[in-house]
Amino acid sequence: MTELPMTVRADGLPSQVTIYEVGPRDGLQNEKALVPTGVKAEFVQRLLAAGLPIVEATSFVHPKWVPQLADAADLMELLGEAGRDCPVLVPNERGLDRALELGARHVAIFGSATETFAQKNLNRSLDEQFAMFEPTVRRARDAGLDVRAYVSMCFGDPWEGAVPVDQVVGVGKRLFDLGASQLSLGDTIGVGTAGHVTALVDGFRGAGMSVDQLAMHFHDTYGQALANAFAALRAGITTYDASAGGLGGCPYAKSATGNLATEDLVWMLRGLGIETGVDLDQVVSTSVWMAGHLGRPSPSAVVRALAQSPA
Amino acid sequence: MTELPMTVRADGLPSQVTIYEVGPRDGLQNEKALVPTGVKAEFVQRLLAAGLPIVEATSFVHPKWVPQLADAADLMELLGEAGRDCPVLVPNERGLDRALELGARHVAIFGSATETFAQKNLNRSLDEQFAMFEPTVRRARDAGLDVRAYVSMCFGDPWEGAVPVDQVVGVGKRLFDLGASQLSLGDTIGVGTAGHVTALVDGFRGAGMSVDQLAMHFHDTYGQALANAFAALRAGITTYDASAGGLGGCPYAKSATGNLATEDLVWMLRGLGIETGVDLDQVVSTSVWMAGHLGRPSPSAVVRALAQSPA
Repeated sequence: MTELPMTVRADGLPSQVTIYEVGPRDGLQNEKALVPTGVKAEFVQRLLAAGLPIVEATSFVHPKWVPQLADAADLMELLGEAGRDCPVLVPNERGLDRALELGARHVAIFGSATETFAQKNLNRSLDEQFAMFEPTVRRARDAGLDVRAYVSMCFGDPWEGAVPVDQVVGVGKRLFDLGASQLSLGDTIGVGTAGHVTALVDGFRGAGMSVDQLAMHFHDTYGQALANAFAALRAGITTYDASAGGLGGCPYAKSATGNLATEDLVWMLRGLGIETGVDLDQVVSTSVWMAGHLGRPSPSAVVRALAQSPA
Repeated sequence: MTELPMTVRADGLPSQVTIYEVGPRDGLQNEKALVPTGVKAEFVQRLLAAGLPIVEATSFVHPKWVPQLADAADLMELLGEAGRDCPVLVPNERGLDRALELGARHVAIFGSATETFAQKNLNRSLDEQFAMFEPTVRRARDAGLDVRAYVSMCFGDPWEGAVPVDQVVGVGKRLFDLGASQLSLGDTIGVGTAGHVTALVDGFRGAGMSVDQLAMHFHDTYGQALANAFAALRAGITTYDASAGGLGGCPYAKSATGNLATEDLVWMLRGLGIETGVDLDQVVSTSVWMAGHLGRPSPSAVVRALAQSPA
């Protein structure tokens, strides 16, 4: 039997893609179940062993807001040296201090593309968020760390509706100017469609920014995540956020469901002959194992298909 | 609030798409629940009222094989004149006779692209299936009916693995030569990826067949259905099979899950500014209503998102 999916390359696509795994942080942050720290460490280790090149480990956000990740320091201790290469989210200088103490080498900040979500999530105006990020990014850079900037609500916002491309490009430019090395453009509520993705990438390109410094972060709320990833591939994007087993969502956004599942993305990329370095079977078995800890089946289509037919 | 999804056209896509609704036939055929005939009639009527231009109503297959559709004749009586414009599946001449008696104007046959599935599903070899179809298609055409031909396993087959493009093109050519007016190319087990879709369409085009006579029928088993639809749009395909609420699958194929959901497809097309004539809200409310009759939530992402946030 010929292996599936059949590999058929398409013209004009990148030959290689980097998957930025967000399951342990963005995924578990949005799960009700409190997962033991040892299980989280094994989750990160298994994902790294499956060939995922970047695994975001946790977040140094205040436990009051995200109790699921209150064990961030313990997790980093458990992960040891390998954990220092895993990016961690730092919402502010206090979070950065904790990450630096633990030897983190890569951090991420989390901004908003819209006024309303900046108010709801950061309790700041859109402009004020940059003032908050400035010392965090500067100090991280001075300490030799890479800084990724998440930009949420890049396509639509539950309070404001459709978000203009120019607005997102403007926010992105300010984050690059502050010193971010990569932007993760998030469709936090999953409403974006393929043409909008292309327009957003073109907007950044047209404003003189490098597409190589952009990552796309899609949610599958309206079933569009993978179609949007295909559109982004055609637009030249080579870094994609994905969550093993499709874990997670956004607790602050109305009707947000899970992230694009790593396995569904890998299936498409494998079919397109695009290298990721990821062992699909290992990610699937990791997601099945984690689903057992969470007490519910994985929402990833590929996990469901392969787990029920172990061909 | 600006309406979502934001419409952003993409270059080189068709301006209009025909959605061929398969929920009442392909969907309900694969549901365990036996739905009362009156509910089925209302389902078809509501889908037509929602602007779906073609709604396949039922199948005149032997009730022993598909007990869910044993009421095909009663349903056609209930639908009356409107039902005669709804295509019906006819597996063979006996089915055609029943459809003709009831005044059907459009019929569909169901073939296989692979040897093994022809054996399993039709109890015939790949070659023998054409001999079975020949009198059915000829007599339907002589009676002035349109004949659509479904081709299953066009991308992968659970027993044979990847299916070569040339093999599918060869099967398609024979069905056109018999007198089919449209082919519906099915990814019955949902394993195909975007580049494979493009290659398949190019294969038909290269063999001199008209892309306007091709429809694509995607399943979401591996989460690829909508990405594949986007690839097919780029390849010039303007007819897409979809199932309201994502109902259905294939009872004979290992690990097959639901069809591409009509709502998820409409969301993408609306975002791309591609006309379908379909009222999304009406389809969603129809799917929610049908989910109530089936006793389980709709698998469509858009239905879940819009039904829980009736904004």
